[in-house]
Amino acid sequence: MIEPEALAASVSERRLWDRHEALARFGATPRGGVNRQALTDAEIAARRQMLDWAAAIGLEPATDPAGNLFLRLPGREPALAPILSGSHLDTQPTSGKYDGVFGVLAALEAVEVMRARGFTPRRSIDVVAWMNEEGSRFAPGMMGSEAFAGIRPLDEIAAVKDAGGVSVKAELSRMSAAFRDVPQRPLGFPIAGFVEAHIEQGPELDAAGLPIGVVTGIQGKKTFRVRITGEEAHAGTTPRRARRDALRAAAAMVDALHRAMVDEDDVVRFTVGRLVVAPNAPSVIPGEVTFSIDLRHPDRDALDRFGAAVAEICARLAAPCAVQVEPLVDAAPLAFPREMQALIRSIAERLRLPHMDLPSAAGHDARNLHYVCPTGMIFVPCEKGISHNEAEAAKPDDLAAGARVLTAVLAELAERS
Amino acid sequence: MIEPEALAASVSERRLWDRHEALARFGATPRGGVNRQALTDAEIAARRQMLDWAAAIGLEPATDPAGNLFLRLPGREPALAPILSGSHLDTQPTSGKYDGVFGVLAALEAVEVMRARGFTPRRSIDVVAWMNEEGSRFAPGMMGSEAFAGIRPLDEIAAVKDAGGVSVKAELSRMSAAFRDVPQRPLGFPIAGFVEAHIEQGPELDAAGLPIGVVTGIQGKKTFRVRITGEEAHAGTTPRRARRDALRAAAAMVDALHRAMVDEDDVVRFTVGRLVVAPNAPSVIPGEVTFSIDLRHPDRDALDRFGAAVAEICARLAAPCAVQVEPLVDAAPLAFPREMQALIRSIAERLRLPHMDLPSAAGHDARNLHYVCPTGMIFVPCEKGISHNEAEAAKPDDLAAGARVLTAVLAELAERS
Repeated sequence: MIEPEALAASVSERRLWDRHEALARFGATPRGGVNRQALTDAEIAARRQMLDWAAAIGLEPATDPAGNLFLRLPGREPALAPILSGSHLDTQPTSGKYDGVFGVLAALEAVEVMRARGFTPRRSIDVVAWMNEEGSRFAPGMMGSEAFAGIRPLDEIAAVKDAGGVSVKAELSRMSAAFRDVPQRPLGFPIAGFVEAHIEQGPELDAAGLPIGVVTGIQGKKTFRVRITGEEAHAGTTPRRARRDALRAAAAMVDALHRAMVDEDDVVRFTVGRLVVAPNAPSVIPGEVTFSIDLRHPDRDALDRFGAAVAEICARLAAPCAVQVEPLVDAAPLAFPREMQALIRSIAERLRLPHMDLPSAAGHDARNLHYVCPTGMIFVPCEKGISHNEAEAAKPDDLAAGARVLTAVLAELAERS
Repeated sequence: MIEPEALAASVSERRLWDRHEALARFGATPRGGVNRQALTDAEIAARRQMLDWAAAIGLEPATDPAGNLFLRLPGREPALAPILSGSHLDTQPTSGKYDGVFGVLAALEAVEVMRARGFTPRRSIDVVAWMNEEGSRFAPGMMGSEAFAGIRPLDEIAAVKDAGGVSVKAELSRMSAAFRDVPQRPLGFPIAGFVEAHIEQGPELDAAGLPIGVVTGIQGKKTFRVRITGEEAHAGTTPRRARRDALRAAAAMVDALHRAMVDEDDVVRFTVGRLVVAPNAPSVIPGEVTFSIDLRHPDRDALDRFGAAVAEICARLAAPCAVQVEPLVDAAPLAFPREMQALIRSIAERLRLPHMDLPSAAGHDARNLHYVCPTGMIFVPCEKGISHNEAEAAKPDDLAAGARVLTAVLAELAERS
């Protein structure tokens, strides 16, 4: 049997880098970033590229009713539950080339190396690209892994619509039609483990100059949709005292929320990322405003405490408008199993790759898989922690280091009973 | 010669009302309002309907390089400068059936009555629909009357683009192509007077129960575009102290501006009607926000004082983002000529229509015509003063009363030397 270290050594930094560049062409923006939102033509094109690479390696493609894509390296005992590894191919509207993509390409690199070295693992290994992790087009995100893990019914996910009124259901059909020859698997088949490689999207590894992060867990997250209803009226004629200006109320709320969501240690993460005004015309008093809230904290109690303040602050500042605060996501902080963390740590040691333990500040599909199988995550640095930005940057050798650790981890996991 | 009172008596309340209903079908919204923004297919269709009515009456159509539409009742002395009367056919995105439309249809009714009663005025009378009064698609508005009055060069107007990047120039060509058989007039030909009938868009006439308002002038107006530049970053990972959140800064500015733009008498009108966030995704810290400011006051000094506070407040609250405050419109308060006010008042008296003097709180094309010829305005009530809203409502008898006063005023003006 080939040692995991030998497989890791065969990872091609060049091939891995070139594939990041190749995928970045699907949805490329003029400023060097990527706009490849879920279930768009750009994502379909990226998946077609993945299928071409998989065919060249000899992987078996499959999809499921939630639009997740699987590329299988069959194991010696194909009846055993497989190991899964991957992330997502969709991006935010102004994103970079690495968020999500790295996890999928690192897993592809791992199975390509195994195939090239003649290593057939005991369990099958599925490279996976989950559907709609980002949630920018269809909110909230992580739809594919949520459906797979049985956390949210597919019917409910399918009914979600984008800003143009197009449903997930319609776009899943469209994608399915584009890949008619890819076999369907049922949703949520048994799996023996999941490992997700990802750029850190935070500054720790870059600041410490380390290529590998052993992810200890994911901070908790709550999201809300706030909708303020006022009354449209003429900007030039309506007296202040007669106005019900939805944007005036929204501005007061957003300002007050930012003042309230503060801690001395700078641990709480509070963001209003999306705000939409109707009718959004310069001389019409806004009749309706909708905005999003994204709140994260690694501590359950603190998260609940900050979360409770949201509805209270919005209600206090709504008059003379009406406000509705709708909770969307409520994800508790979680810790990955110690054995999974220990395996990743020991592989990094054996590969002589400097590493540190750190929690994930961002949510990932691994959050959902954590509830169905032993799950772990491997981080690599990105420049200054900048992500969800066209300037997102990572280094070829760091990406290769992450793929080396992943390859050895998968080889080990796939041998276990 | 037929007396102006006799012409006024021939105004058809039913025909005038039916034409409002007919035009409201172009751009009709599901909630009973109208979305007929400037130079759209809906406005082109509305203009085609106007041309059909004009042809049936025997009016001579014409247009000009700024996309203004003229429908002429030729006078006995066609070499004399004509009298113009009208308003606009474009609307806000969620508007009613009367704003602008009433002024055009009341003028059409006036010339139709003159033609039907065999009255040929000394001067020609042009029914006019000015291009893009509202300014919601292409900002700022009143483009057609500004170009006509020589207040803003047509080249500058033509370069303005909508949110989709389409220019006024391109849309003017498209409209021109749709009306190839309508003769062109040069921009800004000499005119002897302009009278604009309009719904009040404020609560005074409705509250007083009076059908006619003699408009004394228009309050002053300043508009600004505020652009805040921050930095896009990941909502889950970026520490508060490292953020440059453009929406956080915008919310603080909008909130502070609303607190500052207050007077005890409730005379100042301050509105942020449009606010656009980029990239506007729930889990991305906003990198850029643009918002509009619409500020109005009947007193020049007060307008200047409030206007000066805008840039100061925005600059104070920008950090750690950058802000740019761009002044767009700066229109001084104005008073219409006393003789024009007196003529309208005396016609209302002779027609036994109860009336009051009042200033216009809204801007109108009459603002621009005021600088090139004797100009006046006639208001009719709209329910509770609600306008720029799909619920905008007016009564058939009030509209007819306004059209009667307009008809007699135009008949008088067109006889003068």
